[in-house]
Amino acid sequence: MDRELQAEELELLATGAWILGAGGGGSPYLSYLNARNLYAEGTRVRILDPAALQDDDLVAVVSNMGAPLVGQERLADAQFAAKPVRMMEEYLGRKFSAVMSVEIGGGNALQPVLVAAVTGLPVVDADAMGRAFPEAQMTSFAIAGLPMFPLTLADIRDNEVIVSRAASWKWMERISRKVCTEVGSIAATCKAPRTGKEVRDHGILYTVTKAIGLGRLVHEARRVHDDPVRALVAAESGKVLFKGKILDSERRTTEGFLRGRARIEGLAENRGSRFELAFQNEFVVGWLDGAVAITVPDIICVLDTVSGEAVGTESLRYGQRVSVVALPAPPILLTPKGLEHVGPRAFGYDLDYTSVFERAA
Amino acid sequence: MDRELQAEELELLATGAWILGAGGGGSPYLSYLNARNLYAEGTRVRILDPAALQDDDLVAVVSNMGAPLVGQERLADAQFAAKPVRMMEEYLGRKFSAVMSVEIGGGNALQPVLVAAVTGLPVVDADAMGRAFPEAQMTSFAIAGLPMFPLTLADIRDNEVIVSRAASWKWMERISRKVCTEVGSIAATCKAPRTGKEVRDHGILYTVTKAIGLGRLVHEARRVHDDPVRALVAAESGKVLFKGKILDSERRTTEGFLRGRARIEGLAENRGSRFELAFQNEFVVGWLDGAVAITVPDIICVLDTVSGEAVGTESLRYGQRVSVVALPAPPILLTPKGLEHVGPRAFGYDLDYTSVFERAA
Repeated sequence: MDRELQAEELELLATGAWILGAGGGGSPYLSYLNARNLYAEGTRVRILDPAALQDDDLVAVVSNMGAPLVGQERLADAQFAAKPVRMMEEYLGRKFSAVMSVEIGGGNALQPVLVAAVTGLPVVDADAMGRAFPEAQMTSFAIAGLPMFPLTLADIRDNEVIVSRAASWKWMERISRKVCTEVGSIAATCKAPRTGKEVRDHGILYTVTKAIGLGRLVHEARRVHDDPVRALVAAESGKVLFKGKILDSERRTTEGFLRGRARIEGLAENRGSRFELAFQNEFVVGWLDGAVAITVPDIICVLDTVSGEAVGTESLRYGQRVSVVALPAPPILLTPKGLEHVGPRAFGYDLDYTSVFERAA
Repeated sequence: MDRELQAEELELLATGAWILGAGGGGSPYLSYLNARNLYAEGTRVRILDPAALQDDDLVAVVSNMGAPLVGQERLADAQFAAKPVRMMEEYLGRKFSAVMSVEIGGGNALQPVLVAAVTGLPVVDADAMGRAFPEAQMTSFAIAGLPMFPLTLADIRDNEVIVSRAASWKWMERISRKVCTEVGSIAATCKAPRTGKEVRDHGILYTVTKAIGLGRLVHEARRVHDDPVRALVAAESGKVLFKGKILDSERRTTEGFLRGRARIEGLAENRGSRFELAFQNEFVVGWLDGAVAITVPDIICVLDTVSGEAVGTESLRYGQRVSVVALPAPPILLTPKGLEHVGPRAFGYDLDYTSVFERAA
C-alpha cells in the first residue's frame, strides 16, 4: 500500500503541482531542488495510499504559509519544513504516522516530501484542497467541520508559536496569518493533526498521484512536440478560456498575501479581446472583455502557451504568451458548504459561482 | 512569611497602583470591583514575601495585555485572568507555587489578585517593572537577560496561543502584540514562568506593599483634608513638576497601544506656562514650554490636583485640574542596561535620560 517516490517523479510532481496551484501555492522550484538534492544524497520518500491509514493513525498536515513572492526570496530547507512537525509531536506527546500537504497546488506539494525526507514518515497520497487556496478555512477538513487546532508555526529565526485553541477556522486563519506576517510573511506550519479516518473520509485523495500524472502528461507532450496545453485540457476535461500576451500585472504583498491583477491581450482566435484576472495568492476571478468568465473554486491556470508550464501570480510579467485554462475543482468544493468556504463570496466578490463547465454544456 | 490581603487594602492597592501606572497599566477600577466582589463572597488572597520563595518554586507572571482604552470597554473577570495560567501549567506539565504581576502599575496590580482568588495561589509581593511600561522587553527580567518564553495568551472568545520560543525579548513582544491586536487589543497573558530564585534576584520587590502604602497615604490625606499630592511627594521623595488644567489631548489606539499627546495650561505658580506630555500607554516624555522636562524611566504621574487620584492616558480630558508629579524609578531601570530597555531611546525619542531628581540637586 505504499511505494517509493521515484527520483524522476520529483520534477513531474513539481510541474503538475504548479498547474494545480492556480497561480498560487508558491513556485515548487526551490522545494523541488531541495528534494532532488536529498535524493542525490540517497534519501528516499515513500508515498502511502490513504486507504492504508489506520483509523487512529496521526497524520501531520503541513504547509509553507505566506506570500508566494516572499517564498521566492527567503529560501527554506527540509529541516525548516520539519520543525513545526517536531513541535507538534512534542506538544501532543504523540508521534505522527505520516505527513500530508494541506494543498497539492504549488510548492506545498513538495513540503511533505521534504518533511518525509528528514523524518522518515511516509507522504499520504492526498491533500485538503485538491489545488491551492490562500486561507486556512478553505480546506476539505474545514468544510467537513473538523477541529482547527492546534497549529504550530516556526520562522527562520528562533520564533515558535502554537495556536492551541481557536474559536473558529476563520479565527485560526486570522491569528496564524498575523503571526506569519509579523515574522516576514513566510512560515513553516503544521496544521491541526488529522486521524487516519479523518484523512480517508474528508481528505481529497490521490492528488499526489494526480499531480505527478499531470506533470508526466505535460513533459511527454513536450518531448513529442505535441501541444502540452491541449494535451492537459483533453486529459483533464478542462477548457482553454483564452490565449494571449500578458499586457501588465500589478502585485502587492499585503496582510501576508500576494494580491493583484493581470491583464492579457488576445492573440490568434482571441485577437481583439482582453482577459483580466484578479488574485489573492491564487487566481480568484477572470473577466473576458469585462464579463465574468470564471470564478473560484474552478481551477484557473495560467500556462505558458508553448511549454504548458504554469505561471504563478508572483512570476507574471509583460509579454509572456499564456493560455488561461480551467480545470474542474474537486466535487466537495462545489457543494453549498464548499462554496461558503471557497466560492467567490469567500474572497469578497459579490458573485454567484457558475461552473465554467456547466456554462459550456 | 505570608499574610492575608485585607478587604480594605484592595481599594488602597488600586489607588496606589494607578499612581505607579504613570498613566498606563490600565485603570484598576474594574479589576478592583471584581476583587471586591470576590472578597464579598468570602474569597481571601494571601500576599507572599518574596524572601519566602524556594529557589525552584515556579511563579506565574501575569498581565492583562493591550491598549488601556480597550480595557475600559471589554470587561474581564477572574476566570479569564486565570486562563493563561492554567494553559501554562498544562503546557509545562508543572504547577505554579505563586503568582505575580509583570507590572505593579495600573490594573495589572490587581491581575494576580484575581488569579489568586480563583486558583488559591499566593500573590508574590513583587513585580518586574516597579511601575507600568507598554512592552514585554521593558522588565527587570528582560534587563537581567532571563529567557523570554514560553508565553500563553487567551482572548475572551476561545482563542489560545502559546509562543513557545522567541528569538529575543523584542520578538516576543512583536509576536504576542500582533496576536493581542488581532483579538481586539486586549488579552490575558501569562509571561515566561520564573523560578523563586529568579524572582528574588531579579524581581522588583515589595511593590505590592509599596502600592498599598501609596494608596493609604493618599486616602489618609483626603480624610484629614490635607493635600494628597503634597503628602505623596513628601513621602516618596517625588517632585511636583507642573500644576494646571488640561487643554486638550489626542489619542489613537494603534498597533495594540494607546498613543497620543496631552497639553496642560499652567495655573497658580505655573500660570503662563504650558506642559506637554507624550504617551505610549504610559507617559514617556514631558516638555515644559517646549523644553524636555522629564523622560522615562522616571515615573511621570498626572494626578487630580484635589484628590490625588491618578489620571490615566485613556481618561485625560479637557478641563481636568491636574498636577504632573515625578516619582523615582527603581534603580535597576537607571543602569546603562536598564536605560537600553526603558530609556527615552527605547520609545523612539532621540534624547538622553537625565533624572529629574539629579537635575534638581
